[in-house]
Amino acid sequence: MNEPSTSRRRDRARLAAAAAIAAAVILVPGVAFAATSGAPRDNGGATRHTADTSESVRSAIKNGKAQNVILLIGDGMGDSEITIARNYQYGAAGRLPGIDALPLTGQYTTYSVYKDGANKGKPDYVPDSAATGSAWATGTKTYDGAISVDIDGAPQQTLLEIAKANGLKTGDVSTAEIQDATPAVLVSHVGARGCYGPESTACGSDALAAGGRGSISEQLLGTRPDVTLGGGSASFTQTATAGPWSGSTLFEQAKARGYQVVGDAPSLAAVTTASQSSPVLGLFTAGNFPTRFAATTATVGGADLAPVTCQPNPERLTTDLSLSALTTKAISLLQNKKGFFLQVEGASIDKRDHSADACGQIGETVDFDEAVQAALAFAQKDGNTLVLVTADHAHSSQIVDSTPPTSLSTALTTADGTVMKVSYGTAGPGASQQHTGSQLRIAGYGPGASNVVGLTDQTDTFFTIANALKLDRNTAALSDRAKASVERRDVAPGASVSLSARKFDGDRQVTAVVDPGATAVGSADVIGGDATLTFTAPKKAGDYTVTVTGAQSGKQVVVKFTVKK
Amino acid sequence: MNEPSTSRRRDRARLAAAAAIAAAVILVPGVAFAATSGAPRDNGGATRHTADTSESVRSAIKNGKAQNVILLIGDGMGDSEITIARNYQYGAAGRLPGIDALPLTGQYTTYSVYKDGANKGKPDYVPDSAATGSAWATGTKTYDGAISVDIDGAPQQTLLEIAKANGLKTGDVSTAEIQDATPAVLVSHVGARGCYGPESTACGSDALAAGGRGSISEQLLGTRPDVTLGGGSASFTQTATAGPWSGSTLFEQAKARGYQVVGDAPSLAAVTTASQSSPVLGLFTAGNFPTRFAATTATVGGADLAPVTCQPNPERLTTDLSLSALTTKAISLLQNKKGFFLQVEGASIDKRDHSADACGQIGETVDFDEAVQAALAFAQKDGNTLVLVTADHAHSSQIVDSTPPTSLSTALTTADGTVMKVSYGTAGPGASQQHTGSQLRIAGYGPGASNVVGLTDQTDTFFTIANALKLDRNTAALSDRAKASVERRDVAPGASVSLSARKFDGDRQVTAVVDPGATAVGSADVIGGDATLTFTAPKKAGDYTVTVTGAQSGKQVVVKFTVKK
Repeated sequence: MNEPSTSRRRDRARLAAAAAIAAAVILVPGVAFAATSGAPRDNGGATRHTADTSESVRSAIKNGKAQNVILLIGDGMGDSEITIARNYQYGAAGRLPGIDALPLTGQYTTYSVYKDGANKGKPDYVPDSAATGSAWATGTKTYDGAISVDIDGAPQQTLLEIAKANGLKTGDVSTAEIQDATPAVLVSHVGARGCYGPESTACGSDALAAGGRGSISEQLLGTRPDVTLGGGSASFTQTATAGPWSGSTLFEQAKARGYQVVGDAPSLAAVTTASQSSPVLGLFTAGNFPTRFAATTATVGGADLAPVTCQPNPERLTTDLSLSALTTKAISLLQNKKGFFLQVEGASIDKRDHSADACGQIGETVDFDEAVQAALAFAQKDGNTLVLVTADHAHSSQIVDSTPPTSLSTALTTADGTVMKVSYGTAGPGASQQHTGSQLRIAGYGPGASNVVGLTDQTDTFFTIANALKLDRNTAALSDRAKASVERRDVAPGASVSLSARKFDGDRQVTAVVDPGATAVGSADVIGGDATLTFTAPKKAGDYTVTVTGAQSGKQVVVKFTVKK
Repeated sequence: MNEPSTSRRRDRARLAAAAAIAAAVILVPGVAFAATSGAPRDNGGATRHTADTSESVRSAIKNGKAQNVILLIGDGMGDSEITIARNYQYGAAGRLPGIDALPLTGQYTTYSVYKDGANKGKPDYVPDSAATGSAWATGTKTYDGAISVDIDGAPQQTLLEIAKANGLKTGDVSTAEIQDATPAVLVSHVGARGCYGPESTACGSDALAAGGRGSISEQLLGTRPDVTLGGGSASFTQTATAGPWSGSTLFEQAKARGYQVVGDAPSLAAVTTASQSSPVLGLFTAGNFPTRFAATTATVGGADLAPVTCQPNPERLTTDLSLSALTTKAISLLQNKKGFFLQVEGASIDKRDHSADACGQIGETVDFDEAVQAALAFAQKDGNTLVLVTADHAHSSQIVDSTPPTSLSTALTTADGTVMKVSYGTAGPGASQQHTGSQLRIAGYGPGASNVVGLTDQTDTFFTIANALKLDRNTAALSDRAKASVERRDVAPGASVSLSARKFDGDRQVTAVVDPGATAVGSADVIGGDATLTFTAPKKAGDYTVTVTGAQSGKQVVVKFTVKK
């Protein structure tokens, strides 16, 4: 039995540690749980709590409005991937300083639904990142490959669009191409996730040239987040083939629409503000960001080979472009008295898991964890920010005891100095390992975070965020008080007319049509509720109207003007 | 975009549903979250919460003492296994009525530690059920195969032993052989989990014949839980080869020590009380319980075959011996004003996962969920019971999208009417699929349940339970006030002496030695703190002492007596 005196001594050590933690908890309420003293082999030596947590959990529950929300998505970061990264980088008894620090935790379901056929609308148990991202971005379950459209193709409003309509600043940050599913779901609505740019053949009827809403990149420019940071510049070098910016590259279009376009760390460092009049578009790689660690290759029997230690990837971007640095930069640009909504994605946990690359996925998880730390550091200081950390779907990697006979595997030497064997059993060598359908961890800190506790579905996250920010989801009504005016009521034939639209808060663009004649005379971005555009008056004298229509709300305002003889 | 009027209509539906839930929550605080209306494909139709949960989560946090604790372990029931069972039985948008109803949730780590060699004491990332059970049973991490001994072989006090010493009733229920690791860790201390009975060769120095504490079955009889229900009668037909009951079978020993031994449903139904004077030992099968569903066999390429529907197992025990029925029975026998500690294990989720048997593991998860429902039903009514639900380690099964090329797989038609593919990739055909090392879900309801929130380790669960019950873990001190007396101080040579020991609350047995002569004169079970034994007085006249020693506390009480001429 535990010798009582030793047991008492350990109790004292535990109490002393608890007191130290209690002090820490005062500084960072609801977040800090330090490790106990003692070795994992000792009685109580492996515990993670040091005292009853009823009060600390209770104090972590904050209802009321959140000023800001930061949603961090580890793509493909199931509980197995979290454990693999913790074991490797910090040891099994260690902690991922960001991910593991969140005080409120739960699980959520991630299934998608079938698009058509006999199973239309029924659960599809293994989702992709497009369906899962659309689920939390819009609150609507959809089919694999869909970017914020429902199974009938109807676009669903996104959190970023709604937050923007409610006057919040918005940001979208990823280590992937910014057109990749997870960042794309916030800013665009297409039926096929591959519709990256005007040259993408995947666009089909979504292409501007086909009368659609345009590619993900083009829709991103129209959605106009205040801050967009990631990879995927290649699509922006493509040239629009239809619409108001036909003939210009998307980079040219971005500049014409007022974006601050940056492509490297010094240029990003020089950016000091981001707003609707000057949003920031920072694209630092043509495709996805290079990973933190160099890739390892799992093989059949690989875990029987000498265990590896992960090596830095020489191609990695400089640390001022790490996900953590981009998160901190985005927060600094978004902070404002009306609040902000920011999504941050660690994209390549998933991508390296697909490639059965243990070091790759570990490095990306550690990298993502540092971004979580950056978000928590701000939230703790701010005191009024909801931070949510989760994944979109589970993935293949498993920690096993012995080398599996047919699955790919790799052995690694961890921070503990012992060997961890990681197995990938859902695809063969060179093929893509599969997503898996397990429920996932979701964790939160700040106002509204208790909504992650228990079992939820991915679509609950949409409502958790919208409700925490007290967003009015009826954004069309936000344009109810819209007005418009022309600079002068009487104009000369063929003169230039300056049209001002105001309080179109529920819209991102307005269009203008002159009657009689039903002449489309232009469109303009709505910036802070307002838009201006200049058109040429008809040559024929008479009384005219110009109808200004909110592109999203459908709100119409009619302004009269007269062309003099 | 969501058409606003529709959106508002859905909001109204959500609010109405929320109001209905709020009413339900009053009846069963902290547990009930009903599903929302609407199809999963609709906006908000797949959500599981219907309103902000800050208040319901806050109200689910209860500090203060728990009268009772029910710990339910789904062996091998990782998040993947939970999801597989939910998808199959209730659909992806459905709920496991027990498991999914617990209001407070978290994740915990399950690693074991190495016993010896260069890695002694360091983490072993994939644990077995012996190490993991020992971790929550004792608060001490240990090596794979260890039953509540540390890596140096030192026995560690278990929750059941401590609860009993503190005057609580105790119970141990499993669908496995009661000697299997998970039930064994509460009642015994052996170095090798295979030490089931006196004939087990695995016992080595733990055998009574070798001077050890005896096999798991023999130690179980000495630990004397008030209620023990499960399988594993085979070991009790073995004959003790050493100790006070040498030459008797363990069943004979059990009866001699006051146990009510039952072996079928009618006999169990006839049992109306369980106590330290008449504890219940119900063993209903020679080995493990048969499973609920008939086995399916996963094969390479199996998920490409016609999907299966799980079939009842004709060998299944009658429903009055289901895990749920045994849980209800155990609770009814354990209820008392001093409180109880009960562990319930659904053992064969793990065993069927090892066998790549999808239907088997699903049926056992559903069965286990019904036991959770039974525990929650009692706890809700009682209002002062902590219910914890978790697993010991993760396992192999994964839900995949397409049939993996080399792993074993099975396709099933689920409650949704769609096909779920389950893959097993950690072992080949006929070999045992492996445990995996992922962190796991832990969930709770009742006083102290908030200690599961966030990230904990399996060893935290020991302290969560001990603290909720306000157990004095210094059980040796519970024998501090022990007394002993003989019926008569003056006895005739060779007369029978009746010795009474009292207030040995920290002990389960006492031994008696007469001096001078250092003659061991017997041992006795401590029942409710008291023990009596009868010994034969020396033949030589003179003054003697009999020293009564608490077998667990080491507390010694010396009683004088005189042998007259």
